[in-house]
Amino acid sequence: MSAVTPIEVAEGELDSITYDAAGLVPAIAQERSTGKVLMMAWMTAGTLRETLSSGRMVYWSRSRAERWAKGDTSGDRQWVREAYYDCDGDVLLFLVDQEGGGACHTGNHSCFYRAFGSGPGAPRP
Amino acid sequence: MSAVTPIEVAEGELDSITYDAAGLVPAIAQERSTGKVLMMAWMTAGTLRETLSSGRMVYWSRSRAERWAKGDTSGDRQWVREAYYDCDGDVLLFLVDQEGGGACHTGNHSCFYRAFGSGPGAPRP
Repeated sequence: MSAVTPIEVAEGELDSITYDAAGLVPAIAQERSTGKVLMMAWMTAGTLRETLSSGRMVYWSRSRAERWAKGDTSGDRQWVREAYYDCDGDVLLFLVDQEGGGACHTGNHSCFYRAFGSGPGAPRP
Repeated sequence: MSAVTPIEVAEGELDSITYDAAGLVPAIAQERSTGKVLMMAWMTAGTLRETLSSGRMVYWSRSRAERWAKGDTSGDRQWVREAYYDCDGDVLLFLVDQEGGGACHTGNHSCFYRAFGSGPGAPRP
């Protein structure tokens, strides 16, 4: 499951992506095997390029203001299998294989483990 | 399929949500029946509240700077079935039933219809 799938892009494709004033674009990670949305975080042009070429999700941490190769500390790496961008070129979607305990620093498999309408902190069914 | 599923939230749940400097939070719409991620757009505290109480996706259009009840013009309404928020409370995820032709103004079912690595404009398999 951890075999690497680099994605070779033509230069024109990366030019289609629009970044916000801080130079960031939202990146959604969806688990390929289950279809679950695991998390959404942010990428720069540089970490997007690294994500595609390395086949591993590399984000930009806004709180630490630094490159964030997901799983370097926790082991919970995300392996890219397919990568998409939306109609406006301002949101990215990655189909990934999630390694380790899960995507979330809380220990949950997905960061979206709380449902509205179940009271605060209700677990996802 | 267009029956409404309002979600009643406790006030404390909405207090868990964090908005950016512009008062916005990203909202991902995922199709319940297929698991496909359809789009990501933005909500204000007001349109989030309306989305949950009306059972229909209501975004905030950044380009028009106005409330955007998805499908009012196109008929491509999105009916909320489940609603989640992430560990940091700064991203929302909705499982929806998509009505009409699709989520995208281009006529595609999902806004993520272009894959990296297939050349510009390559269709999603």
